[in-house]
Amino acid sequence: MTPPITHPIPKKTIERLSEYRRSLLSCHEQGITHIFSHILAGMHGITAVQVRRDLMLIGFSSDTKKGYDVKVLIEFINNILDSREVMNLAIIGMGRLGQAITSYFNGKRRKMRIVAAFDVDPTKVGTAIDNIPCYHIDSLAEVVEQMDISIAVISSPTSVAPSLVVPIINAGIKGVINFTSAPLNFPQGIVAENYDITTVLEKVAYFVKEADENGDKS
Amino acid sequence: MTPPITHPIPKKTIERLSEYRRSLLSCHEQGITHIFSHILAGMHGITAVQVRRDLMLIGFSSDTKKGYDVKVLIEFINNILDSREVMNLAIIGMGRLGQAITSYFNGKRRKMRIVAAFDVDPTKVGTAIDNIPCYHIDSLAEVVEQMDISIAVISSPTSVAPSLVVPIINAGIKGVINFTSAPLNFPQGIVAENYDITTVLEKVAYFVKEADENGDKS
Repeated sequence: MTPPITHPIPKKTIERLSEYRRSLLSCHEQGITHIFSHILAGMHGITAVQVRRDLMLIGFSSDTKKGYDVKVLIEFINNILDSREVMNLAIIGMGRLGQAITSYFNGKRRKMRIVAAFDVDPTKVGTAIDNIPCYHIDSLAEVVEQMDISIAVISSPTSVAPSLVVPIINAGIKGVINFTSAPLNFPQGIVAENYDITTVLEKVAYFVKEADENGDKS
Repeated sequence: MTPPITHPIPKKTIERLSEYRRSLLSCHEQGITHIFSHILAGMHGITAVQVRRDLMLIGFSSDTKKGYDVKVLIEFINNILDSREVMNLAIIGMGRLGQAITSYFNGKRRKMRIVAAFDVDPTKVGTAIDNIPCYHIDSLAEVVEQMDISIAVISSPTSVAPSLVVPIINAGIKGVINFTSAPLNFPQGIVAENYDITTVLEKVAYFVKEADENGDKS
């Protein structure tokens, strides 16, 4: 059993726990039963100290002779990250990105489930895409209540995104992941992450450019 | 003219500069000529102190009476972030996610351009998708050299991703953005970012759950 955690866990640790879990699940599938912190660290390009610190934060310790028990550690992280009940998600904007997220995501996580999609395209509204029913955005509040949806994923065109903020607040959504290029602000009490794909492309391009220019000097 | 920056700029600052630029471009389109640091900060849910610190780091100062000159600041950030020559990108894995990235990205950034896609699907190889020619993954090294591609975006199925590491290294790619759930390690000298969509969904779900549970207690 996981002891109750009384202190708040930092966002970065939560991200890494999610990443550790994916690697551990892959190890488990391959029949690996134990793993040392430095091996787990190497899989994520971080230090063993960081891994041990993260696991200490959630109260997990291990038999250091054999490393961490993979199956036990997965269960331990499940207890931290997963809600007791399944959390329902909606995709707003069922273009290529929305469909990519749906096909990529569904069935992979036991405790999260994409249950509805929203769009304005009349060829999509009223149909099911990848078994996800697609509704008109005007019925957001109604469907969110009926289906007990707590998280919205915004994959609409960027130009549309700002107009979604008020309907999302009114629908009682508790968490938002915004994949568009428009940074959106939600009131406190709604967990929101802006996750723009262009930013990471530009970041990598910048550091490639820097490495090139430093290389040119030598 | 931007003075040469001699100190390294932190990754987080580079990310924020990319985000500021998108907001500034949107302001510019709306005819806004000047913006105060606290307004720009509010658009990104951060403090004005953070904005001023980032801009100080790149050597930008402003007439504080009217705020930052939007057009001048955009040009300033362009000079920091953009390479002098256009940087060529390749998409590896032309499924829904690869196509979403292509349609979302192309034409938006002047200094980065998706010029090739790679897949193994015989219905895709040899065709053009969104005007991007699609090649077989076996010709990666050849096409990367011919087209002077420096950055690879991995949007293949997760199970395939680990097998792409060696071909990408051998092709002379300098930067990698990996959108799959398999964390990949590249040798030093290759800039690599793992950018797994599931991680951000899990993070938001965790903080929604936490808020719910804390709410239940009261």
